Amino acid sequence: MKTRYLSSLFMLAALPLAVATAWAADAKGHKEGPGAGYEAGAGGPSGLAGVEMYQSTDPKAPPMSKAEFDQARQIYFDRCAGCHGVLRKGATGKALLPDLMQKLGSDSLKVFMTYGTAGGMPGFGTSNEMSEKEIDLMARYIQHPAPTPPEWGMKEMKASWKLLVPVDKRPTKKMNKLNLDNIFSVTLRDSGELALVDGDSKKIVTILKTGFAVHISRLSKSGRYLYTTGRDGLINLIDLWMETPQTVATIRTGSDARSIDTSKYKGFEDKIAIAGSYWPPAYVLMDGFTLEPKKIMSTRGYTYDEQEFHPEPRVASIVSSHIKPEFVVNVKETGKVLLVDYSDLKNLKTTEIEAERFLHDGGWDSSKRYFLVAANMRNTVSVVDTKEGKLAANVKVGSKPHPGRGANWNDGKYGPVWATGHLGDDSIAVIGTDPAKHKQNAWKVVRSLKNHGNGSLFIKTHPKSANLWVDAALSPDAGQRQSISVFDLKNLDKPAQVINVAKLAGISEGRVTHPEYNKAGDEVWLSVWGPKNGESALVVMDDKTRKVKAVIKDKRLVTPTGKFNVYNTVNDVY
Amino acid sequence: MKTRYLSSLFMLAALPLAVATAWAADAKGHKEGPGAGYEAGAGGPSGLAGVEMYQSTDPKAPPMSKAEFDQARQIYFDRCAGCHGVLRKGATGKALLPDLMQKLGSDSLKVFMTYGTAGGMPGFGTSNEMSEKEIDLMARYIQHPAPTPPEWGMKEMKASWKLLVPVDKRPTKKMNKLNLDNIFSVTLRDSGELALVDGDSKKIVTILKTGFAVHISRLSKSGRYLYTTGRDGLINLIDLWMETPQTVATIRTGSDARSIDTSKYKGFEDKIAIAGSYWPPAYVLMDGFTLEPKKIMSTRGYTYDEQEFHPEPRVASIVSSHIKPEFVVNVKETGKVLLVDYSDLKNLKTTEIEAERFLHDGGWDSSKRYFLVAANMRNTVSVVDTKEGKLAANVKVGSKPHPGRGANWNDGKYGPVWATGHLGDDSIAVIGTDPAKHKQNAWKVVRSLKNHGNGSLFIKTHPKSANLWVDAALSPDAGQRQSISVFDLKNLDKPAQVINVAKLAGISEGRVTHPEYNKAGDEVWLSVWGPKNGESALVVMDDKTRKVKAVIKDKRLVTPTGKFNVYNTVNDVY
Repeated sequence: MKTRYLSSLFMLAALPLAVATAWAADAKGHKEGPGAGYEAGAGGPSGLAGVEMYQSTDPKAPPMSKAEFDQARQIYFDRCAGCHGVLRKGATGKALLPDLMQKLGSDSLKVFMTYGTAGGMPGFGTSNEMSEKEIDLMARYIQHPAPTPPEWGMKEMKASWKLLVPVDKRPTKKMNKLNLDNIFSVTLRDSGELALVDGDSKKIVTILKTGFAVHISRLSKSGRYLYTTGRDGLINLIDLWMETPQTVATIRTGSDARSIDTSKYKGFEDKIAIAGSYWPPAYVLMDGFTLEPKKIMSTRGYTYDEQEFHPEPRVASIVSSHIKPEFVVNVKETGKVLLVDYSDLKNLKTTEIEAERFLHDGGWDSSKRYFLVAANMRNTVSVVDTKEGKLAANVKVGSKPHPGRGANWNDGKYGPVWATGHLGDDSIAVIGTDPAKHKQNAWKVVRSLKNHGNGSLFIKTHPKSANLWVDAALSPDAGQRQSISVFDLKNLDKPAQVINVAKLAGISEGRVTHPEYNKAGDEVWLSVWGPKNGESALVVMDDKTRKVKAVIKDKRLVTPTGKFNVYNTVNDVY
Repeated sequence: MKTRYLSSLFMLAALPLAVATAWAADAKGHKEGPGAGYEAGAGGPSGLAGVEMYQSTDPKAPPMSKAEFDQARQIYFDRCAGCHGVLRKGATGKALLPDLMQKLGSDSLKVFMTYGTAGGMPGFGTSNEMSEKEIDLMARYIQHPAPTPPEWGMKEMKASWKLLVPVDKRPTKKMNKLNLDNIFSVTLRDSGELALVDGDSKKIVTILKTGFAVHISRLSKSGRYLYTTGRDGLINLIDLWMETPQTVATIRTGSDARSIDTSKYKGFEDKIAIAGSYWPPAYVLMDGFTLEPKKIMSTRGYTYDEQEFHPEPRVASIVSSHIKPEFVVNVKETGKVLLVDYSDLKNLKTTEIEAERFLHDGGWDSSKRYFLVAANMRNTVSVVDTKEGKLAANVKVGSKPHPGRGANWNDGKYGPVWATGHLGDDSIAVIGTDPAKHKQNAWKVVRSLKNHGNGSLFIKTHPKSANLWVDAALSPDAGQRQSISVFDLKNLDKPAQVINVAKLAGISEGRVTHPEYNKAGDEVWLSVWGPKNGESALVVMDDKTRKVKAVIKDKRLVTPTGKFNVYNTVNDVY
């Protein structure tokens, strides 16, 4: 497999169109297995196919037929929109506005697309991900004005909403013998499915049809309900109390989405769900038990710094507060963090915090008062004080931080800290998080650790562990991306142990990613994400000995990526 | 003068294009008088002229030249946008979307425009406000897609901002002998000016150049600073401490605007100003002493009821809380009332209250806890409890309520009440406002009084008065619109005395509007709003005797409309 650039495992679906089409067909044909009984929403993986788009063409741009335009639009959505934005205003990637594109001209554009750039643009030609013909098509397409995708309001959401098992038809007690706290919810990226894996027995409990390339799983406070969001905006609500856990409701909240969470504050447990969309740029508050949509809030607005109107401020990550009835909603392009008080949806209180642009992913500090979020293109971690409802600090870190939810430990020298790896370099930034008792270290990079490669996506530890696990899943080096670094938190001056997990699993091609602890904190689960038609695996490592404890291989485990342990996800243990 | 429909005196400028052009020329030529030293912002009355517009034409619509399209765009902005919206999504007027317009066709559209409709559409042909040629132009124009006006972000605002007299160059004490508390700030609608009139001597203090058709004047808490907003989005900040009060700063916050206010809460006196725009749909928070723009917030979002995305939710009215550091911002098309906490602009707290659609104007109840705002096309008054930050009630009233700020008195039978007149009928709705001590009357129409005509714009009383004054300025009947009803608040069963004020002022043509009390509460000031090239006047009535006390005529008083007494405006006395 040639080197393949991905800005983020869960962000950029460099998905061959054929696969997307196959998936769409599969989703519709899939009526027998678990999760049957609902359709995968309107029109396949992107959520846009089959929907009439508004489009205009520009006589100054090279001509395209309607069919070409439509094909290019789909390719753009699948490969380009994640970084450049649907409206091409730029984010992780540069703005691609028609005027400039026309100035560059088809030949130059084809060179960019074929060979990529040092700035991070993938070489779609050299990696064989796009044919010459497709590159020619896309070079012409981006010289035309970007078609605006259709809106998706309450009418469309309600029409897409399917309550498959109403609340009163659900069990009143747990009907299975599973140890739910130690279930892992595993994204099967390229098949648009989810595997529930029993953390005790290491056996697959069931495979559920979901949205495409599920970005995250989140658990309700009770641990009973599991929520997933597909990159295509399809949300699944799964009831873990059923004899075999199954999807009890679905809804499409947009045509492009990344985030979901559920109310955790006392008195609101399980009651309210929230989903954030890339398109339309908005978030929606829903009934937590049924996914019935209640309130849609737009995020279109002004960038925090230059205060220019942005038509596409996408909702990146969302987390749920334990100390207030609030969701923390991160708006990428405008650089604003919204604290959304869900205690009264008719009179909605929000706090809009000026943070930093290009907000992406993040997690809580160990006290769960501070939320740390990466502003990746600004090499910054923004720290939000959710108790006071304001920005605590912007911390300069390395190149393109990508923490996932990050990792918290009590550092022997610096007190409580939180850490992030980076996409753009091989450093790991360790930030002091305790302004009360370690004021001199608070919101400063107190340590910089050396990862085994750049392109890190995820970092993880556990309160009961003395280890820190860091991947390099997007490293251009095959050996690096197959490996994981393990640091000894008691002796951080010592270099990490680098373990080639793919090799241990007997998989020659693949990326090792997303370390996740079991509930007890004595096992680390890793994904060996192989090619779609090749072999993948889940590898369970003993945290103490750092040896392989189990390798889970199964032909149903198609491209496993994110894994979410129920207990750790409910309680934000990381 | 033929009957002329106006949905609201301050909302719909049915302004002949020639006048607009003349005004623009005048504004630029006006360098000698008070207020000289700054230009009237970019491009004349609409704020849009001279700015490159995005436009697209539709081959299915009748052809138009670029020149015709540009002329039609200006006419649309001046005459149609107030009711139908810049993007023609509809509000007070119906939606005018190209598909439907093409279906109706040019001939039918010309009939509508020429003769008007019973639903309230004015007959622009029968009133001679548009020529046959212009009607033909507009009938073709609205079959084409609506051009989106340009955005207006921080860069544009900053470029338009003019600090004419910096704070350190201003007087440190009052330099004139005026009794500032009893100054009246009078909109001279068609000349784009403001008259400051001394309420004691009844003399004009000065005339200041302002934005076009100043919609309202607001006073800072100290009473020193006067803020006006033109319909064209040009804001003036006037320092009343100067020997002759003059404009010390201007800014253009948008291309179409209606509202401005200033912080009144303890500790924030005079510090922060807010302006609301129709286009772009947004509000901006500014330094109260300089108009330096600090923060722009978009109002684009979802309608509260159907939750459909609206591209143009316009900011109608804004009021400033006395009990919290908050502005109350009313968003018309989405039907949401925003409580904007200005105590921390970097971490902005807002409460978004679902009220009712087509919010327009409103005022405080006598306790200043509740804000009552007309949702005019829904025949509703929405009541917001600003202490609790939530909707208290939606009260059904008559047809198209238009309270201005309304009128408060302590009703002998029902306790504290607030009242509104109506555009669409001749009733006056009196609403109980004291849920604590008169719970059975709270948020109910406890009385319905009979005005002398429909088309009422303003209603007013004063805590020291026993009278209620109500105009019928938009009545189709000449006698009615020249007259005012005066009710005895101690005997509301008695019909009102109807006084033809225009006749008393010796003005044959004109509308009598906007009753406003002096500080003492013993005089009522009325505008007799004549034709632009004819005679207008201010008439001062003795409140007790209801007799004319003074008629102020002056060739400089061109089309006077709103009058704002400094003390009553600072303290929201009405």
